[in-house]
Amino acid sequence: MTTSVERPATSLAALRGPEDLCALTTEQLRELAGEIRRFLVDKVSRTGGHLGPNLGVVELTLALHRVFDSPRDTLLWDTGHQTYVHKILTGRADAFDALRQPEGLSGYPAREESPHDVIENSHASTVLSYADGLAKAHALRGVTDRAVVAVIGDGALTGGMAWEALNNIAAAPHRPVVIVLNDNGRSYAPTVGGIAEHLAARRAADRPAGVPGLFDNLGLVQLGPVDGHDIEALEEALRGAAALRRPVVVHCVTRKGHGHAPAERNEADRCHAVRARPAPGGAPAVKRASWTSVFEAELADLGERRADIVALTAAMLEPTGLTAFARRFPERTFDVGIAEQHAVTSAAGLALGGLHPVVAVYATFLNRGFDQLLMDVALHRAPVTFVLDRAGATGDDGPSHNGMWDLSLFPLVPGLRVAAPRDAATLRRALGEAVAVDDAPTAVRFPKGVVPEPVPAVDTVAGLDVLHRSGEDADVLLVSVGPLAPVCLAAAELLRRRGIGVTVVDPRWIMPVAPELIDLGLAHRAVVSVEDSGRAGGAGAALAQALTDAGARRPVQVMGLPQRFLAQGRREDILARSGLTPDGILSRALRALGRSGDTTPIRRSRGE
Amino acid sequence: MTTSVERPATSLAALRGPEDLCALTTEQLRELAGEIRRFLVDKVSRTGGHLGPNLGVVELTLALHRVFDSPRDTLLWDTGHQTYVHKILTGRADAFDALRQPEGLSGYPAREESPHDVIENSHASTVLSYADGLAKAHALRGVTDRAVVAVIGDGALTGGMAWEALNNIAAAPHRPVVIVLNDNGRSYAPTVGGIAEHLAARRAADRPAGVPGLFDNLGLVQLGPVDGHDIEALEEALRGAAALRRPVVVHCVTRKGHGHAPAERNEADRCHAVRARPAPGGAPAVKRASWTSVFEAELADLGERRADIVALTAAMLEPTGLTAFARRFPERTFDVGIAEQHAVTSAAGLALGGLHPVVAVYATFLNRGFDQLLMDVALHRAPVTFVLDRAGATGDDGPSHNGMWDLSLFPLVPGLRVAAPRDAATLRRALGEAVAVDDAPTAVRFPKGVVPEPVPAVDTVAGLDVLHRSGEDADVLLVSVGPLAPVCLAAAELLRRRGIGVTVVDPRWIMPVAPELIDLGLAHRAVVSVEDSGRAGGAGAALAQALTDAGARRPVQVMGLPQRFLAQGRREDILARSGLTPDGILSRALRALGRSGDTTPIRRSRGE
Repeated sequence: MTTSVERPATSLAALRGPEDLCALTTEQLRELAGEIRRFLVDKVSRTGGHLGPNLGVVELTLALHRVFDSPRDTLLWDTGHQTYVHKILTGRADAFDALRQPEGLSGYPAREESPHDVIENSHASTVLSYADGLAKAHALRGVTDRAVVAVIGDGALTGGMAWEALNNIAAAPHRPVVIVLNDNGRSYAPTVGGIAEHLAARRAADRPAGVPGLFDNLGLVQLGPVDGHDIEALEEALRGAAALRRPVVVHCVTRKGHGHAPAERNEADRCHAVRARPAPGGAPAVKRASWTSVFEAELADLGERRADIVALTAAMLEPTGLTAFARRFPERTFDVGIAEQHAVTSAAGLALGGLHPVVAVYATFLNRGFDQLLMDVALHRAPVTFVLDRAGATGDDGPSHNGMWDLSLFPLVPGLRVAAPRDAATLRRALGEAVAVDDAPTAVRFPKGVVPEPVPAVDTVAGLDVLHRSGEDADVLLVSVGPLAPVCLAAAELLRRRGIGVTVVDPRWIMPVAPELIDLGLAHRAVVSVEDSGRAGGAGAALAQALTDAGARRPVQVMGLPQRFLAQGRREDILARSGLTPDGILSRALRALGRSGDTTPIRRSRGE
Repeated sequence: MTTSVERPATSLAALRGPEDLCALTTEQLRELAGEIRRFLVDKVSRTGGHLGPNLGVVELTLALHRVFDSPRDTLLWDTGHQTYVHKILTGRADAFDALRQPEGLSGYPAREESPHDVIENSHASTVLSYADGLAKAHALRGVTDRAVVAVIGDGALTGGMAWEALNNIAAAPHRPVVIVLNDNGRSYAPTVGGIAEHLAARRAADRPAGVPGLFDNLGLVQLGPVDGHDIEALEEALRGAAALRRPVVVHCVTRKGHGHAPAERNEADRCHAVRARPAPGGAPAVKRASWTSVFEAELADLGERRADIVALTAAMLEPTGLTAFARRFPERTFDVGIAEQHAVTSAAGLALGGLHPVVAVYATFLNRGFDQLLMDVALHRAPVTFVLDRAGATGDDGPSHNGMWDLSLFPLVPGLRVAAPRDAATLRRALGEAVAVDDAPTAVRFPKGVVPEPVPAVDTVAGLDVLHRSGEDADVLLVSVGPLAPVCLAAAELLRRRGIGVTVVDPRWIMPVAPELIDLGLAHRAVVSVEDSGRAGGAGAALAQALTDAGARRPVQVMGLPQRFLAQGRREDILARSGLTPDGILSRALRALGRSGDTTPIRRSRGE
């Protein structure tokens, strides 16, 4: 970052790092806070990103960086999308034009960017566990001059692992941890449950220190509530907490979206995340429906016809497409908080009670409930339907948000049936079929973004959709999973032009592997499976094993996302880099036929 | 169960079902409680099983069955090993001779056994979520005359999902749930943390109702503490709780192992679980070391040499083999409670702080921390070593305790390295290698039971142990994973006798797949992999995919446990039924060679 002595000391551009904050007066800090807010609104409106959470922590972040000496003291942020201000204050303001862009600034903490970023987690409720571990390490190594500071929202406190951590932190009064409770009364939406009500009561109390609270009962000292937009009060509380040299909770009351009128007016989500503004003169925003909206409308319709359908979300009602259902059937909609484990097992309880629960969740967050899916739902053959949005490569939220694990987890779960629709019609159909299953769990997964044009079947074979069939010989079977159908069809066309017989099949229900799909595979000389999920142990791997068990003489070629943490980038680029393109599939198919060498001529003539 | 009118009404044998309890006097109930304790001690000492937890809930179970009308009212038990008394009272006393035996009475609730068993979960802390779901279903369906009763131990309250559930239950005062807190101050060992200290304070308080507690703060009514061995007091509290028609916590103080002197004297675990007594005249107990004890001794030794090694357990210090380490290095040993999520992420925090954590856990329970392993440990490349005991078929604890999921989860985790030792020497070696890795997580997995005799390598190829090589031709490569080496060697002998060239290789480090193993696979005509874990997506599947990617022309034959919930049985039987026998491997190998037909003659001559 360039600096200039001519600029006023309060200017963002003059800030070289958090150490420069120490010399500022209260008035200068207030001016800086205003400048940071204007900067955030300006930049994030262009690039898209998390706005409301960051507007809410401007003063808190300033106070933290004045009181503590990062990176010597460790600042740990739960749910990393609240670190934009921290990034600005640690020398990364110039990088915000490329926020969330390929090769650009991450929307989450990133250790590659700065020594001030220590953990990159963006799944909620983890930070107190990190803090407990780090405090234990300091204690064992005799480190007494480095503070451990963990910032956690009230929403994240609805996640159970935060309580596991509090239980441990509280048990060791000799290990200092400063827990900064950023209480804005919300996760994505307002925080739910007994914990939220307790915090609200404390905020409202005249003398909250006189009210024994949850944290006191665990044995933690609790300071506050403090006005989270009053820098002086925050600093005083944080200095007091640090001086106690024991575990302390500093209860800071902030307002999500503070200081930005559109966010303060928006009760639905306080501008939690905003989309990128289209460039002037650029293409207008696509008007096609999103996968989420197709699901949303269909679930609401199913809810009209089936009184036993109930819907659950883990604090993401609107993003997972439950708004329409919740509006029509508020009493049949349950927001359980950021609590995927409870979402899954309470769904099993609802099923025991004779209802059919639909758990709507981002694919990556179902990982939090894997044991519950396996033991509490599947072992009990509970008819719960899981609807996984953001399945597959999502891109700009970075490695922790790609939904590339679900298809590898599902084959482990006995009895679970999994559908991957390829367009709006097959999504509606899959959902209807899923909620009709009454003796086993089901899952329907689809990606982020707009639904593609309809991809019609040219034939069906025992419930499997045949999307393409050409050539006299049964050379290649392309097994297309979900939204990759258009890519598979384009690859089929490349194969057809080479005189290679090709069938493209979309099994729609990909797990368990259908016997008819195995027969189809055995009837072709080569099989290539194509999925938008991690390659290890996914749909392709399950098919490969089933075909081998059935006596297939050639191995199935499995295509999918590489089993790595994928850096942020556009979804299309991630798919292309993973070989999930017509050419990539052509190449694999030729290899499966033992004709790897002959890709070259066609590649040369691609301009035709 | 046979009944007899001649027997006194208090006799166990006269009990037809819980309805018979209503007519008993307090004195008769006390006699019955004594009879049940004698019955438990007698039966469980013969068969093995969970003794202490059940001795602690005799009066509580009697009171529950007198106050509530099961199965019309739903009794839900957390961590199902505390349901022996419930089984006795619901007509299953006669079946205790076959407790935990193949085809016999389950050691956990089992819906096939009785309509009084509603959930079969034996992973802890789930019951409140089930109860919340069931209460929601009752409310939606207008069911007002059926109580939902959830029994949970104080130990299980250290698990975060219990707090996720409490947060939801507390938010709905109109949905009745009776939460029976069975507070014996212990999980397996004494319960740890702030929650335990809070409960202890309540137990000790003169007028606990005047002390606002954790539950009160969430908005739950709290009754008690009640003496959990005083049936009248228990009944009064339970009736009071039911009458309130809202969520209530009934705090019952019980003593694990109550009424059985050996348990009461045993502070380590209160006879939590006891082994089967050998039959008179039967073979003496095997004196060979257990896998656990080999790990225990080695870790303690490593701890002497490496001051940075710390150990973590989720409330299972002794069963996972941490006792020796904890005795030598108490300050470097952390019991975090039944809290696998926190165990994993706080280990990441310890690693950030410069230490090398070893997380010792039963394989099946690591499922609880999958997201944390992936995002909090692996994404951060934190050098944490996971030691998985009870990996593979365990048998008599039923489907939820088989450690058959870990090898399918591990290939999903980028950068994780996994070892499966085959004997004591390779376990020691793997552990030493694991704690030497400082830039990635590692896992070492081994089964329940005694370590087999040493299985020496006849050669090593770039770190891979070759256990057997015979024949001129490279016909079959048997890839032996972990403790199945002796079975693979026996299969190799069967192949050798047929004149088939066979190599048996133990890669020791099975993930990621070693390039040298791929080369070895490509150099053989057929590859069979053999593992003691679920077949879907495990070590064999990873190898199969790697070989296909490398251009193998034949598919790898993957052998392992079927991807089903396996009924309780002996480990050996489960392995045999899964084809993990010399004959089963022979058969697969012949099939891989395209010689499936020629197994018959050998089978006929097996008596040779």
